[in-house]
Amino acid sequence: MPAYLRFRPSMPMEEKKASPHRRIKATVQYDGTDFLGFQRQPRGCTVQGVLEEALGKLLGHPVTVKGAGRTDTGVHARGQVISLVTESSIPAQNIPVAARSLLPPDVIISSAEDVDEAFDPQKDAVSKTYCYRIWRGDVPDILTARYTYWWPGKLDFELMEQETAHLVGRHDFASLRATGSSAKTTVRNVMEARWVIKPGPRGETWEFWITADGFLYKMVRLIVGTLIDVGRGRLPAGTIKRLLEEPGSGGAGHCAPGRGLCLEKVTFRT
Amino acid sequence: MPAYLRFRPSMPMEEKKASPHRRIKATVQYDGTDFLGFQRQPRGCTVQGVLEEALGKLLGHPVTVKGAGRTDTGVHARGQVISLVTESSIPAQNIPVAARSLLPPDVIISSAEDVDEAFDPQKDAVSKTYCYRIWRGDVPDILTARYTYWWPGKLDFELMEQETAHLVGRHDFASLRATGSSAKTTVRNVMEARWVIKPGPRGETWEFWITADGFLYKMVRLIVGTLIDVGRGRLPAGTIKRLLEEPGSGGAGHCAPGRGLCLEKVTFRT
Repeated sequence: MPAYLRFRPSMPMEEKKASPHRRIKATVQYDGTDFLGFQRQPRGCTVQGVLEEALGKLLGHPVTVKGAGRTDTGVHARGQVISLVTESSIPAQNIPVAARSLLPPDVIISSAEDVDEAFDPQKDAVSKTYCYRIWRGDVPDILTARYTYWWPGKLDFELMEQETAHLVGRHDFASLRATGSSAKTTVRNVMEARWVIKPGPRGETWEFWITADGFLYKMVRLIVGTLIDVGRGRLPAGTIKRLLEEPGSGGAGHCAPGRGLCLEKVTFRT
Repeated sequence: MPAYLRFRPSMPMEEKKASPHRRIKATVQYDGTDFLGFQRQPRGCTVQGVLEEALGKLLGHPVTVKGAGRTDTGVHARGQVISLVTESSIPAQNIPVAARSLLPPDVIISSAEDVDEAFDPQKDAVSKTYCYRIWRGDVPDILTARYTYWWPGKLDFELMEQETAHLVGRHDFASLRATGSSAKTTVRNVMEARWVIKPGPRGETWEFWITADGFLYKMVRLIVGTLIDVGRGRLPAGTIKRLLEEPGSGGAGHCAPGRGLCLEKVTFRT
């Protein structure tokens, strides 16, 4: 138990009732390499755990952080959104800088603002955007190795783009998720899915961008692994279409590693 | 002392003489964040130490690695060149893949080849190229934070380019190096020094590329810190010219942090 919890002074009921309850919304970035994912676990270092400890110290009371989405072990975020309730009077815009010295270098609070107390980063999110990055150089590149999946082998890009087009729309992704998720439905609406090739002096980076109203457990990584397996001829053309038309039939490709994945943006109702 | 040194069997003189002495040249990349620089230290983790341990296991005998240049704590490399002598008969081109499982993920051997036994990565190097990266976004970017210096404030780019032009040529860099180096002369020949602006959706990265026949202790970081200090109006225009014309007079800018620096390439006599 962290020190600030252990020594928290007990508070009389009247005073507790009188304290203002501000809700703060914050955008958070993290390098997921050394974390067991976002969500707090009984053991191991998580982004939520690190944020709650730092923000607890900053705000002077125990803090519960809620994230817009869970990310798995090794998955990064540049646009995770969290919310928390505080009794502190600190101006919200001061939180990013004030938290910097309390957070490890692999977790950054980009911005913070006061929001309506009813704000819920999970329920109010209308879409999330992920990017999966594949490094296509002949040799690994140390400056991007933590954030990309190195795949130097031959891949049929046009075929992968054709497969990708089938993802857009309302589909049952039961064949493109890992077991272990507690989702009530496996139907998701994919608003956008596209590839962007970024050239560079040492090789290309292939970025797979996908926006949906929600994602199932390991869904993006299984989609990318399946697209790669089609692109290298291990799975036939039309695999994505078949998997979506016959949910639960199985036959997806490999699960691409977490390190290539990044939660880029969460969009809310305006 | 690592196990392979402790239990090395003693060898009769005849056999030792008969063993072939191959010299291997290899290109190495590393993420310097968690290393106390390249060169082996009495205490602490260094790139040389990690390479010697992994290559010792791979080649079956103690290995001494010599690098083309030392890099300081936190400085990265995409094109460091090392040499070593081995008695092993492993084909050189197999070394990068064979060493992968013996090396930590932040050190990569990109390529290896047999070279003349006289090859010396320090003495035979005719030039080295470094890149210093500055992240100019309003907010830090977690995917580049390990490899860039975040400087969101105003900088006069044109003025910095004008200062940079004075670096090219043969100059005495006594005012642009840190004490503690054992260099015999402080004169170096800068073949190229230029800025490249890389635009991106979240902000620009300013890259400072410099090629010289050699570098003094912290020279690139002091040059970049001085250029920034001129660009933000903390030092007057003409500072670089004055520092080079009056070596040892002092008055350089701040020392930019190691994390932004990367040894990109070492060029040898052909």
